[in-house]
Amino acid sequence: MKDQFFTYIQNLQDQITSKLEEVDGSAKFREDNWQRPEGGGGRTRVIENGNVFEKGGVNISAVHGKLPESMQKMFGVGEVDFFACGLSLVIHPKSPMVPTVHANWRYFEMYDESGNVIDSWFGGGQDLTPYYLFDEDAVHFHKTSKTACDKHDPEFYPKYKKQCDSYFWNAHRHEARGIGGLFFDYLKATEKRSMQDWFDFVTEVGNNFLESYVPIVEKRKDLPYDESHRNWQEIRRGRYVEFNLVHDKGTLFGLKTNGRIESILMSLPPHVQWVYDHHPEPGSPESELLEVLSKPKDWL
Amino acid sequence: MKDQFFTYIQNLQDQITSKLEEVDGSAKFREDNWQRPEGGGGRTRVIENGNVFEKGGVNISAVHGKLPESMQKMFGVGEVDFFACGLSLVIHPKSPMVPTVHANWRYFEMYDESGNVIDSWFGGGQDLTPYYLFDEDAVHFHKTSKTACDKHDPEFYPKYKKQCDSYFWNAHRHEARGIGGLFFDYLKATEKRSMQDWFDFVTEVGNNFLESYVPIVEKRKDLPYDESHRNWQEIRRGRYVEFNLVHDKGTLFGLKTNGRIESILMSLPPHVQWVYDHHPEPGSPESELLEVLSKPKDWL
Repeated sequence: MKDQFFTYIQNLQDQITSKLEEVDGSAKFREDNWQRPEGGGGRTRVIENGNVFEKGGVNISAVHGKLPESMQKMFGVGEVDFFACGLSLVIHPKSPMVPTVHANWRYFEMYDESGNVIDSWFGGGQDLTPYYLFDEDAVHFHKTSKTACDKHDPEFYPKYKKQCDSYFWNAHRHEARGIGGLFFDYLKATEKRSMQDWFDFVTEVGNNFLESYVPIVEKRKDLPYDESHRNWQEIRRGRYVEFNLVHDKGTLFGLKTNGRIESILMSLPPHVQWVYDHHPEPGSPESELLEVLSKPKDWL
Repeated sequence: MKDQFFTYIQNLQDQITSKLEEVDGSAKFREDNWQRPEGGGGRTRVIENGNVFEKGGVNISAVHGKLPESMQKMFGVGEVDFFACGLSLVIHPKSPMVPTVHANWRYFEMYDESGNVIDSWFGGGQDLTPYYLFDEDAVHFHKTSKTACDKHDPEFYPKYKKQCDSYFWNAHRHEARGIGGLFFDYLKATEKRSMQDWFDFVTEVGNNFLESYVPIVEKRKDLPYDESHRNWQEIRRGRYVEFNLVHDKGTLFGLKTNGRIESILMSLPPHVQWVYDHHPEPGSPESELLEVLSKPKDWL
């Protein structure tokens, strides 16, 4: 399974980066291969200062070795070996009219002393962070997410949509990071579902990513905007930073276990503002966005 | 003691904000008074878009009530009442040639059921974060810090300087946030020193703040700079954000205990950049700064 999934994310990285380069029409992804001293490494691809994309990363990694102590506690195990691989992406478009997107698909294995797999699971999801909200974009993102889920189980979309709303909650601001999507974790083999079934589901969601996001980019990338829209985008990106550095488990885990910092923090937006006690005009599009982010919404 | 110290920080806030307004010559501090539902409140003063200061806050607060659960664990006590007051300031100048400064002076008390003080201590310090390093500014900041310390004990400066270097360490970047200063905490009454002695010491450092910082501002505020200097400043401010959101105990405590968010996060810089895998030219002033920040330096 680990080879099967790692091959999958390698190919998916190629597909996604070549499509995003095509959409951008100007910038190309820069590739950095890195090694993890304790075992494994990754292939980071970052695009900057494009026509459409101001900054984005589409990274894969496959790491292995002794499970770090902090994760032993988290998983309730002792000293075991592990393997983890995944694809993580965050795309920050230049135009405030085009939403930021994040997606991640990952696979985890743990082994006993003889090298037998004692536990394994998939995790991942995708979520959208608009600065100016077009309801039909949110609906499109959720509808394509649901379509991918429904091919496997009608209960998946409502469940993983709800988990997404819970996870991407900027608790100290009492607001959502964005308009959600899907979030799933610890997808393990059960009587009902094999790891191959979960592989089929997770790769369905992965294959669906470009269809859920690119049409939104195409539709909004040429809309006019001015400095006031851009300021609002940069202020909202501040909230993105706050979420990633204060609440996001993946980011904090990477920072505290000596991961490759630049690959982890490629998720941070290029230009960001913090304005003291900023409140948009009541009734403005900026204010309407805040209203929507104040509680999870059913988009379908 | 609590009344004595709270009166002191109220007056110090007035002194500092009026001097900084004078230095700025254009912007004025905006004042926001706020109440804490569980007891107490604060007086936040923020300056934005000045001639000299792009964003800064000089805040006081005095809060009391039941000690939050997370702090019970930290202090190894049960359900007790507490009182805490302090002044916190962060000043982000517009010019990359002028360093950011942070300072804080605080006092804490805990009570038994009859309202008797069972423990009390002072804490605080001041530290400087330059974007372009002028050695003589770092020396001035440390020398004035040392002068204030030496009036009370020649062991204070080396001890609190070292604690500052340890505390303001951006561990995930393997670099210091800035060039340090003073950091002290849990200053409690001993046979050798009464709380009044500590009050005298902490207020000595507080009274010394303007002298340690303002001459640096005056000296550097009119130096020429261009967009490349400004970009570097904004990139380095990203590290400031990373420290405050990932490592700073005060910020995280505030965020997780429902403090007034805008007063806590006034410390975040106004305009910030994250550039993927940025490295300055070897031998450049930017590169020399990184060299200095890679390990604590003895400035005196």
